[in-house]
Amino acid sequence: MTDPLDPLVKRARDGDQRAVARLITLVEANDPRLPELAAALAPHTGTAQVIGLTGVPGVGKSTTTTELVRVLRAAGNRVGVLAVDPSSPFTGGAILGDRVRMQEHATDPGVYIRSMSSRGHLGGLAAATPQAVRVLDGAGCDVILVETVGVGQAEVAVASLADTTLVLLAPGLGDAIQAAKAGILEVADIFVVNKADRDGADATYHDIQGMIGLAERAPGHWRPRVVRAVATRSEGIDELVEAIAKHREWLAGHDELQRRREQRAAAEVEAIVLARLRARVGGPARDAAAAVAAGALDPYAAAGSILADLGHPDVV
Amino acid sequence: MTDPLDPLVKRARDGDQRAVARLITLVEANDPRLPELAAALAPHTGTAQVIGLTGVPGVGKSTTTTELVRVLRAAGNRVGVLAVDPSSPFTGGAILGDRVRMQEHATDPGVYIRSMSSRGHLGGLAAATPQAVRVLDGAGCDVILVETVGVGQAEVAVASLADTTLVLLAPGLGDAIQAAKAGILEVADIFVVNKADRDGADATYHDIQGMIGLAERAPGHWRPRVVRAVATRSEGIDELVEAIAKHREWLAGHDELQRRREQRAAAEVEAIVLARLRARVGGPARDAAAAVAAGALDPYAAAGSILADLGHPDVV
Repeated sequence: MTDPLDPLVKRARDGDQRAVARLITLVEANDPRLPELAAALAPHTGTAQVIGLTGVPGVGKSTTTTELVRVLRAAGNRVGVLAVDPSSPFTGGAILGDRVRMQEHATDPGVYIRSMSSRGHLGGLAAATPQAVRVLDGAGCDVILVETVGVGQAEVAVASLADTTLVLLAPGLGDAIQAAKAGILEVADIFVVNKADRDGADATYHDIQGMIGLAERAPGHWRPRVVRAVATRSEGIDELVEAIAKHREWLAGHDELQRRREQRAAAEVEAIVLARLRARVGGPARDAAAAVAAGALDPYAAAGSILADLGHPDVV
Repeated sequence: MTDPLDPLVKRARDGDQRAVARLITLVEANDPRLPELAAALAPHTGTAQVIGLTGVPGVGKSTTTTELVRVLRAAGNRVGVLAVDPSSPFTGGAILGDRVRMQEHATDPGVYIRSMSSRGHLGGLAAATPQAVRVLDGAGCDVILVETVGVGQAEVAVASLADTTLVLLAPGLGDAIQAAKAGILEVADIFVVNKADRDGADATYHDIQGMIGLAERAPGHWRPRVVRAVATRSEGIDELVEAIAKHREWLAGHDELQRRREQRAAAEVEAIVLARLRARVGGPARDAAAAVAAGALDPYAAAGSILADLGHPDVV
């Protein structure tokens, strides 16, 4: 084959960091060769353990990720890190500010670190992130850490694509009720109360334990663990890694790993389909906008016309 | 007409709070009569001023909203408040925790307050919120405050549907770079540095002023204002209301109000179309999930089959 992607995929599978970087850039840019790339990667994926990590700004996500990388590397794992910056939907441009904290791993050939923005990718984070995970998986990473900024729906969606999801909390960054508001209680497999040496850490710890205690769970379901940590001093990281291993064991013993991966695959396929359809809808929606804004046309009637034009009159 | 929605819409237009509540419940539940509701409301919409308000948990959104309602009411406005809780994508259920702070307005017939979750609504916040805004607009609200929790993409999207978007910051809740990460710099028309009596408030104020100074703006474009406030003590609220009025004037003088409203209408129509199409895609995506998770089928190939089945082989 004269396929120009093939040598790149082969080099990425051999652990060539530049090839991995190049492939993730293709994913970010929504390159027309993505279907080809996905086909080339598919047979080599499915082995990496995917760990999601989320929490509000300032909670210590980067430091915790850096610490996790240290411990996972010491145990001999190849590690990939995707730091997903929603960044601007308007101007693009990931801000790499706190990436510098990860410099200690920057020269380690067994660690691949990438800040990723969703700019340019039609389907946003929901479509781009799983494809980047596929690249790292295909490149032989044993563990992939996906760090998302924020606690909004998009971030919850990305976090829920992981095998194991960590939610970071810290004293003074909003109480447990506010965490619950953003839907993170339901996606968290493990809570990390970071900055556990600060005032209020005990209250945060007990609040979250209280909410876990109140949550309804069917018998045999995983009860989220809560780990205290001071990531800047490497405290609690071994305990966190142990909790992740416990969750992994539980997943494997309950057919839950398979269920989560199928759920991830379904979401991935759906995001690709919807991104392609969205490309068809944007123009007609803008064409109808003036009439809708003026109150001359209601948005459902406008939507109905567009669906009919797309060949789906019956969907309305 | 025997249309059962008609009397409800009429009562809502007369300011009947129960009728308004009922209509928003229909929106939340994605009721099959939404197209009919939208058609009934359309001629009566377009007059309300929509103000978005967002920020990380703990920054003081509810208190600030309550204070804004107080000042807007004193000026004779009918005010609607939509507190959009992303809540759980899994179990639903808005948590009304801090709504209690708004009790002082609960018995005022000129104020309509609603906590809204996106559960059940196929299109999520993006589809449900504009419809709820339409209900309040049609019911005669002069000002509609849309408060969103979090700083993620979904929240940014909702905030950007407003005529004027306020972004709340507070000292100790993550620095300006982290705010920028979430894309809020580009959507903010006005920044509120709340809890301005706390340590670090000056630094937050100057950080954000610095970032505004560095941002590129075409000549004649709005330069975001920064207002200091201590909402719990009603400080800075008059200044905030004045800044909102200034922005409103600017919008009107630059054809920007029309542009934003058409953008909102386009997004609204697109969200409805995509929600309807998503209903078609979910099942086939789940059917393909096992093969994709096993690496036997790549996600783009699966997406291509689904698009072909939907009659869009050429979209791939």
